[in-house]
Amino acid sequence: MSIATKDITIEKVKTSKIDQVDFDNLAFGSVFSDHMMVCTYKNGAWEMPKIIPYQPITLDPSSKIFHYGQSIFEGMKAYKDKNNDIYLFRPLENHKRFNISAERMCIPQIPEDYFMEGLTTLLKLDKDFIPTQEGSSLYIRPFMFASGNGFHASPADEYKFIIACAPSGAYFSGKVKVLIEEKYSRSANGGVGFAKAGGNYAGQFYPTQLAVAKGYNQVIWTDDTTHEYIEEAGAMNIFIRINDTLLTGPTSDRILDGITRKSILDIAKDQGIKTEVRKITVKEVVEAAKDGSLKEMFGAGTAAVISPIAGFGFRDTDYELPELENSYALRLKKIITDIQYNKSEDKFGWRFKVDK
Amino acid sequence: MSIATKDITIEKVKTSKIDQVDFDNLAFGSVFSDHMMVCTYKNGAWEMPKIIPYQPITLDPSSKIFHYGQSIFEGMKAYKDKNNDIYLFRPLENHKRFNISAERMCIPQIPEDYFMEGLTTLLKLDKDFIPTQEGSSLYIRPFMFASGNGFHASPADEYKFIIACAPSGAYFSGKVKVLIEEKYSRSANGGVGFAKAGGNYAGQFYPTQLAVAKGYNQVIWTDDTTHEYIEEAGAMNIFIRINDTLLTGPTSDRILDGITRKSILDIAKDQGIKTEVRKITVKEVVEAAKDGSLKEMFGAGTAAVISPIAGFGFRDTDYELPELENSYALRLKKIITDIQYNKSEDKFGWRFKVDK
Repeated sequence: MSIATKDITIEKVKTSKIDQVDFDNLAFGSVFSDHMMVCTYKNGAWEMPKIIPYQPITLDPSSKIFHYGQSIFEGMKAYKDKNNDIYLFRPLENHKRFNISAERMCIPQIPEDYFMEGLTTLLKLDKDFIPTQEGSSLYIRPFMFASGNGFHASPADEYKFIIACAPSGAYFSGKVKVLIEEKYSRSANGGVGFAKAGGNYAGQFYPTQLAVAKGYNQVIWTDDTTHEYIEEAGAMNIFIRINDTLLTGPTSDRILDGITRKSILDIAKDQGIKTEVRKITVKEVVEAAKDGSLKEMFGAGTAAVISPIAGFGFRDTDYELPELENSYALRLKKIITDIQYNKSEDKFGWRFKVDK
Repeated sequence: MSIATKDITIEKVKTSKIDQVDFDNLAFGSVFSDHMMVCTYKNGAWEMPKIIPYQPITLDPSSKIFHYGQSIFEGMKAYKDKNNDIYLFRPLENHKRFNISAERMCIPQIPEDYFMEGLTTLLKLDKDFIPTQEGSSLYIRPFMFASGNGFHASPADEYKFIIACAPSGAYFSGKVKVLIEEKYSRSANGGVGFAKAGGNYAGQFYPTQLAVAKGYNQVIWTDDTTHEYIEEAGAMNIFIRINDTLLTGPTSDRILDGITRKSILDIAKDQGIKTEVRKITVKEVVEAAKDGSLKEMFGAGTAAVISPIAGFGFRDTDYELPELENSYALRLKKIITDIQYNKSEDKFGWRFKVDK
C-alpha cells in the first residue's frame, strides 16, 4: 500500500494563531504552528495520517511512555527562500534514521510515504509559520512514542507518530565552553546511543547541570570504558581541527549518525579540507591545545547546525581556542546553510523542494 | 513544611469500577483502582497532592516526556492479611530510591511526607482493590515525569508525580529460561543503570525480543565493556547459587539497588545461608553448570518477588538447572512473602502497617 496527499484527512484550525508569533524574537522550540500530524499504530498496523489542530494529547496514566521511555524523535528544519519556496534538507535521511531508532526501541517502523506525505501536507498547510529572518527556520519535530497501556515492562501495543512544528531562532547563542567528562557517560557499548531515543537525552541533563555549575555550557562525552576517547558534544556530534585537518569520531552503537555530521564531511572534502574519521583521544586534543595545533572545535547537529566551541575544560585546567578569521566552522556553516536556504547551487542533491 | 493526610484533597469517583475487576483472574498491571494521586511541580515547588478519580492525563505535544525520556518510577505492593489490615513492604526504601533516581534524571525530589501521605491516603480509599487471593497483591506504581513544554533538550520546568494502583496477579508464570547476552547492554559506566529511569527499560525490549525469538524468556545482562560479568536478569537483580553459596553482584552505577535484592541477602544470612556479594563471571557460572555445582539461578524484584530460572543459554549451548526440592528460591520467597502478607513475625522491621 502506498499513500498520497489526498489520503490524508485535514481538520483545519478555526482561527490561526500566527498573529501571536513574534517572528523577530524567536526562541528555540517554544511556540508552535497551527497544526500537527498524528498517525496511530493499532492492531498491528499504522492508521492513515491525519492533520489536526495543534492540541493536547490525552493518555491513560498507564501508557508505557510514562513508565518505560519507549520513545524516539527526529529533528528537521524547513526553510523558505526569497521566492517563498519551501525546502527540507535531506529528509529521507531523517526518515531512515527514525526507523533505525524505532527498530532498536522496539517501536514499529513507519513507511516512507506516511512520513513524507504527512510531513509535506503539514508543511504546506503551515507554510506561513516558516520564518524568513536570518538564522531562523521552522524546526520540525517528528516523534513516536508508546501510547499503549499497562504496567508490564514490555513493548506497547499502540503507538503515536506525531509531527509538530515550531518556528525557531538559534539553538545556542554565542560560542560555548565545554567540559571533557570523565565520570558520567552518555551511552554503553551495545546500548542505544546511536538511536534518537528519549532516554539518551534525559541521562545527559544531570552531568550537564554539573558542568554548567562549573561555568561550562556543555559536556564533551567520552567512552564509558576508558574515558580516553572523545565521542559527542552534548547532544551534537563533535568536530576537531588540528592544524588543517578536520577530525570527527566514527559512528558506532554509541554515537549518533548525524545528518549534519555527514554533510559536513562531504562539504569539507569538496572544499579540499583534509578530513579524518577516526577515534580521537582526549590526550591528543589536550596536547594539541598545549602546543597550539588545536585550531577549532565545534558541535554539529540539526538544531544548532554548527556550534563553535570557544574553549574546553579538562581536569581543572581550562584551554582556550584561538579566534580564527577564516574558521572551518563559519565557512562550513555558510556553505551548508546556503544550500539549506536555496542561496547556492545544490551540488550534492540534498535540497528537497516541498510543492506549494 | 510537612503535610498530613488532612492536607490532601480527595475527589471521589461517582461510581466505583470494582465490580468489573475479576479478582480470581488477575493479570499483571492491566486493571486499575478507582483513584490516583497526582502532585504537580510548578514554579519551583511541589503543589499539595490530590486524590482524583483514575483518569487520562492531558499534555502538550511538546511536553518533554515525549521527547527526552525524563521519567522515573518505582514498583511497590500493598498486601492484606487475614484481618484485612493493609501492609506495605519497606516503603521508605522506595521513597529513598525514587529520589536517587530523580537526582540522576534532573527531576525535583519529592519530600517523604508527600510520598507517604499521598500513598497511604490513596490506599485507604482504594483498599477494596487489594486482592486477597494467593499470589495476588495491589501493585503500586509511583511515577514522575517531565510535563513541562518545549523542544529544547534541557530539563523541564514542570513535573507530575502520580501514584496509580493495579490489582495484579503473578508477573511471570512458571520458570524462565534466560540467555546470557554478549552483544547488547543495559547500561554504561557513569550512566543511569542504577536509576529506575524509563529509558533503561525501553532499551531492553529489543534484545529481549531477539532472545524470545530464540526460545528464551529473558536476557541476562553482562557488563558493556567485556561481557565477562553477570549484572542483571531482565529487569531484575540476579542471584546465583553455586554449591551452597548464594551469590549476587555488587550494586554500582550500572546495577539497580533492588529492595527485594537486599531483603533476600538479609534473610539468607539470617537463615544461615552463605552469601557473597561480588562480581560474578560468566565463565564461573558456565563452568559450575558443567560440573554440577550450579544449583540455582533466580531473578529478584518487586513485581515477580523471586523468579526461578530453569536454564540458560550461552553461545549456542543451553544449560539446564536441576530441579531442587528445597531450593533457596522457594524457601526465601516463602519467608519474604510471609513477612509481606503478615503471616510471620517481622524480625527485620520491614512491614509498614497502613492505618485504616
